[in-house]
Order: sequence, then C-alpha cells, then structure tokens
Amino acid sequence: MEAKKIILTGDRPTGKLHIGHYVGSLRNRVELQNSGEFDEIYIMIADAQALTDNFDNPEKVRQNIIEVALDYLSAGLDPEKSTILIQSQIPELTEMTFYYMNLVTVARVQRNPTVKAEIQQKNFENSIPMGFFSYPISQAADITAFKGTVVPAGEDQEPMLEQTREIVRKFNSIYGDVLVEPQILLPKKQSQLRLPGTDGKAKMSKSLGNCIYLSDPEETVRKKVMSMFTDPNHLRVEDPGKVEGNPVFIYLEAFATDDSFAEFWPEYHNLQELEEHYQKGGLGDVKVKKFLNKVLQAELSPIRERRARYEKDIPGVFAMLEEGSRKAEKKAAQTLAEMKHAMQIDYFQDKNLIAQLTQKYTV
Amino acid sequence: MEAKKIILTGDRPTGKLHIGHYVGSLRNRVELQNSGEFDEIYIMIADAQALTDNFDNPEKVRQNIIEVALDYLSAGLDPEKSTILIQSQIPELTEMTFYYMNLVTVARVQRNPTVKAEIQQKNFENSIPMGFFSYPISQAADITAFKGTVVPAGEDQEPMLEQTREIVRKFNSIYGDVLVEPQILLPKKQSQLRLPGTDGKAKMSKSLGNCIYLSDPEETVRKKVMSMFTDPNHLRVEDPGKVEGNPVFIYLEAFATDDSFAEFWPEYHNLQELEEHYQKGGLGDVKVKKFLNKVLQAELSPIRERRARYEKDIPGVFAMLEEGSRKAEKKAAQTLAEMKHAMQIDYFQDKNLIAQLTQKYTV
Repeated sequence: MEAKKIILTGDRPTGKLHIGHYVGSLRNRVELQNSGEFDEIYIMIADAQALTDNFDNPEKVRQNIIEVALDYLSAGLDPEKSTILIQSQIPELTEMTFYYMNLVTVARVQRNPTVKAEIQQKNFENSIPMGFFSYPISQAADITAFKGTVVPAGEDQEPMLEQTREIVRKFNSIYGDVLVEPQILLPKKQSQLRLPGTDGKAKMSKSLGNCIYLSDPEETVRKKVMSMFTDPNHLRVEDPGKVEGNPVFIYLEAFATDDSFAEFWPEYHNLQELEEHYQKGGLGDVKVKKFLNKVLQAELSPIRERRARYEKDIPGVFAMLEEGSRKAEKKAAQTLAEMKHAMQIDYFQDKNLIAQLTQKYTV
Repeated sequence: MEAKKIILTGDRPTGKLHIGHYVGSLRNRVELQNSGEFDEIYIMIADAQALTDNFDNPEKVRQNIIEVALDYLSAGLDPEKSTILIQSQIPELTEMTFYYMNLVTVARVQRNPTVKAEIQQKNFENSIPMGFFSYPISQAADITAFKGTVVPAGEDQEPMLEQTREIVRKFNSIYGDVLVEPQILLPKKQSQLRLPGTDGKAKMSKSLGNCIYLSDPEETVRKKVMSMFTDPNHLRVEDPGKVEGNPVFIYLEAFATDDSFAEFWPEYHNLQELEEHYQKGGLGDVKVKKFLNKVLQAELSPIRERRARYEKDIPGVFAMLEEGSRKAEKKAAQTLAEMKHAMQIDYFQDKNLIAQLTQKYTV
C-alpha cells in the first residue's frame, strides 16, 4: 500500500492576505489542490498560534479569521477538495502539544533559528511568552495530527519541519510507530519566496502600508501600482534602469507570463525583452507600471468577484469553517487515540490492564 | 452568595505511597474530606505530570496509578465525598495549559524556585524537557479547571501557588472574570512537613529503600522500624540520647498521641515525658522502637485491611476512577467553556459574531 499524500499548511489570522501571501503560498496551494495528486489537504487558520503573540488582542485574531477565510475561498481554495479548519476548534492539537513537550528540551527550542529570528523581530527578548517560545512544538502537533506528509512552505520554515521530524522520530522510537515524518515542499521559483513592499522595503507589512491586498478594489490596486518605488536613479526615460531590486520588475517576475505580453503589451514577447529595454534606457516607469497594473488586475479581478459573492454569505462561510473544523477534528482525534494507545495511557479502553492487575493481586 | 470552598490536590503516580505521604498530606486530606467544610474535593492522580520526567517509562506511571488509587481508598478517601481523577483523562487541562502559556514568560518560569530545585535534583541541567519546565503552568490549569480555592500543600509549594494566582489575575484582567485565585493550606504541625527516611536521610525515597509504605505487611513494617537509624551516639542504655534529628522520635511526633501512651505504654503520659527520659539516659532504643511499631501498626492496620478488600476488586477501583474522571471532566469542560467565551474564541457558538460580520459586509 502506498502511503497517503497529505498536505498541511495555513496562516496566522492577523490580517487580510496580500499578494505576497498569494505569490508565496496561496496560488501554489490552489495549484496543488487542483493537481489531484493529494489524498487529503488541510488548510489551517492558525488562530491559537496567532494568540501566542496577540493574547492581549483576541479581537484582532477573531476579526481576521473571516478575512483569511474569504481570501482563501476567493483565491480558489475549494472546501470540497481542501479542508479549511480553525486551529482552536481542534482541542486535540493542544493535547498533542502537551505530550510532545516532553520530547523536546528547552535548549533545543532555544537553538531553533526561526524562533530566534522571530523573537528578535518581535522585540520579545527576555519576555517571550512560553506559548510563543514553544510554537515549534505546537506546529509539530498541527502537522502530525493530520499525518501531514507535505508542508508547502518557504526555505525559512525548514528548521520548523526538522523539529517536527525530530519529535516524530522520538515519539515513534519510544512509544511505537504512529506518527509520520513530513517533508517541506519548496516554491518552484525564487520569486515565489517573498515579494517586497510597494515601497521597495524587503517585506510587505500592514504597519508600513506597503501591501497590495487580495481584497483591494481595482482603483486601490491601480493607485498602489502607479505610486510604486522603482529604480531611484532612473530619472529620465532615456536613462538606463535597474531591474534587480526594482519591485515593479520583481512583481512582474511573479505575475507576468508570455501570455500577459501577448494580451496587454505585444511589443514585447516576454519579460526578458522588456527588462533588456529598461536596462538599456528609453523606457519610462509609467508604461511598465501600467502593464503591471493590467497583469495584476487580470489575476485579481476573478478573486475580487468571488470575494464579493462570499461576502454576501457570511453565515455560509462560517458553516464551511465549522464543517471543515469538524472534519479535521475527526482526523486529529483518530491520530490522538492511536498516540494514547501507543503511550498506553488509554487506561479505560485498555481491558488488558485491568486483567493484568487483577491477576497481580490474586496471586 | 458565599464563594464555594473547593479543594484540589493530588500526587504523581511514580510509586506506592509511604507514611511520609500519609503524614505530609494524605491523612490531612481525609480529615478535610470528613470535616464537611468543603463543597467540592478533587484528588488528582497526576499521571500526565509524572510523564513529564518519565516520558520514556510510561509503564511505571501506568502501574502506579492503581497503587496510588488503592492507597487513597485505603487511607480513607471516599469517592462519595472526594472526586478521584486521573489527570490525562481530562483533556481540557491541556487546552487550558496551552492558553495559559501565553500569559507566562520563559524568564518567569526560570525564576520559579520549585522548578529550579527540581531541575537540580533531577540533574536535568540543560536538557530539561519543555514539558517538565512548564509544569507550573500545567499545575495552574489543574487547580483552576476545578476553580480550586484551597490547595493543601507544604510550604515549598507556595511559589507554584503564586504562579497560579499570577495566571488567574492576568487571565481575568485581559479576558474578564472567570478564574479563581487559590490559597495554600499549610500543615498544622511542623512534623507534617516531611518525614525523614528510616535511615535518617532527609527524604524517603524508593531508590534509597528507606520508606515504610502504606501497603507494607505488618512484619515488614516491624522489621523496618526495629532497624531504624536513631542517635548514633546513644550506644549504651544509660547514655543520654538525642531526640532532635532522631527519626524514631520524629515519627513518634507525627504519629503518637497521648492515647497511644495510655494504650501501649502507660508508664509515660505523653511524648514529652518519653523524650525527657531518653535525653536523660537510661532508655534503650529497642523499647522506643517497639512502642513506635505498636503506634504505627495501630494506624496502618485499618488501612491495610481496607487495601486488601479493594485489591480484590480492581475492576471496581477502575470504575471508580473512570466515574471520578468523568465527573471531573464535566467540571473542567464547564470552566473551559467559560474561558473560551471570555477569550471570544467560541466562534461557532457566538451568534453575535456572524451577525456583526454580515452587517460589516452589507454596508
């Protein structure tokens, strides 16, 4: 029997999703979903994980669950093919986390480079909440609960996956073969790793106001594109321009295909031709931005239309989330039951134990 | 309405209970139970906590659950009055632990003196499992799940209680008044704090073989008492003897009453008279040990008899544990539901949320 191919992935619901999320993961998930290659797909809205560093603002997390769900559905995730679940509604995950914590030392978590980086980024220093500190362990529970074999993620998530595999190996070696080791599925193109902000800063961030959201209206997207940061030394049209580090070209790399050129700018056959012209000089930023806008609108308008439909049926979206969470819990409960049986802490289900102890006290 | 008085206490099932446990907590629990002063009493067999430092030996924990349960029942805990539960059978506790972890920093746990001491004692150093490291948080869940107001424990447990109260205050201040601050109930007598081993070492420990167990047969107890360490300078009967640090006298302090003297050694009216004679000289250790043996047997023989009856009905003891765990889970689930409602993560029960979001998207 061939092993099942099971995907687990998700997002912390701390804001609406932007085109960085789309290029970095969401678009790829939809492709994987529609490839028909996977037996089960779980997409988790990780509210409990979001609470580890937003515990004093649960309202923010609460409001963004629906935003993320709308973004998922609009981008093409299909609840018939992908189980969309809310993490906190699967209590089994916390129970698994609890037992996995016995298998990981404090020193091991401290060495996790992703944790280190995030602690620095969030200015936690000495006041890291235990919940945030232990999120690699919680993430191992998320993945293993569904016996996930494939986690589509960026290279920066590899240390998290390695932590999960360590837990799986340790659990299985102590208690018996129950858990499955997941593998990371890296993006195919470098440009899928991370889109810069519209201002050229390395990262899109709500607080910097440099994101283009999947839910942005057409006119908002157009304005954001037309005011994008480009090559600051490309002052006159005839000047040579730089495409490296130029967010307009990075976005084109992520979105424009040869078909985009055929449709919207047939003067060029492909991005390489456009780039060569820009580098040589004689090509103005406004023209390139107008093209990027057309390309983006073509990608975003069906997403926007689907969103408008889903927004009219919030109760339906909640019903989908409840159904997905219920289905996911069933799977997690099955895995947890296997774990507890292997750990032999299923005392009341274990008829051997009573028989064995009765025997012990009658001799 | 007066607040309910609720007790939560328990033991890690890592071995049979000895007279140190009895004097330090169990005897007191039975008295509290029979005082009629408490509305609810929860006695927890903390198997999940025991697994934090015995995760590679679940069989040890598993076997000792029934031993501890037998010791409880034999010592006089009455399932009609005290709910006896197995920690791992209450999954709500792990969910509470998970959310409490957001409210406690890593630095705060590191400062906990009980954790520090236990880490040292167990030679964990840098390889502390996360589960063990975070057990003060797990313990806060155990107490607050049942809205425990009173935790009978030794003074060394005060830092753990303080950690619980901090979590309660933080939770209530962020999310609203749900949790209850517990208070410690210290032993009345100094001698109840900790009995030394029969070899005079500070602590009874299975590995040192210096314990008298509640389940020891009469002859075993007699032999252990007769070979007890006493004052090493009390060589001849006529020599003056020391009672301070002399385990025979410490045990008598814990067990012998004036009635014991009236019944077994009427030459003395009370322990003070006996001690004065011993200190003066002219009183042999054997005589004192014979008296201690009588006193101990009088205390232990009803316990032993009850144990023999319960040992004949292991399925009945398991049924009691299952019933107690079921009852305890009901209470914990109620508290957890209140917590999740306060945290507003009860999305599917929260009809306001759907109404509010529907409103948001229709304007």
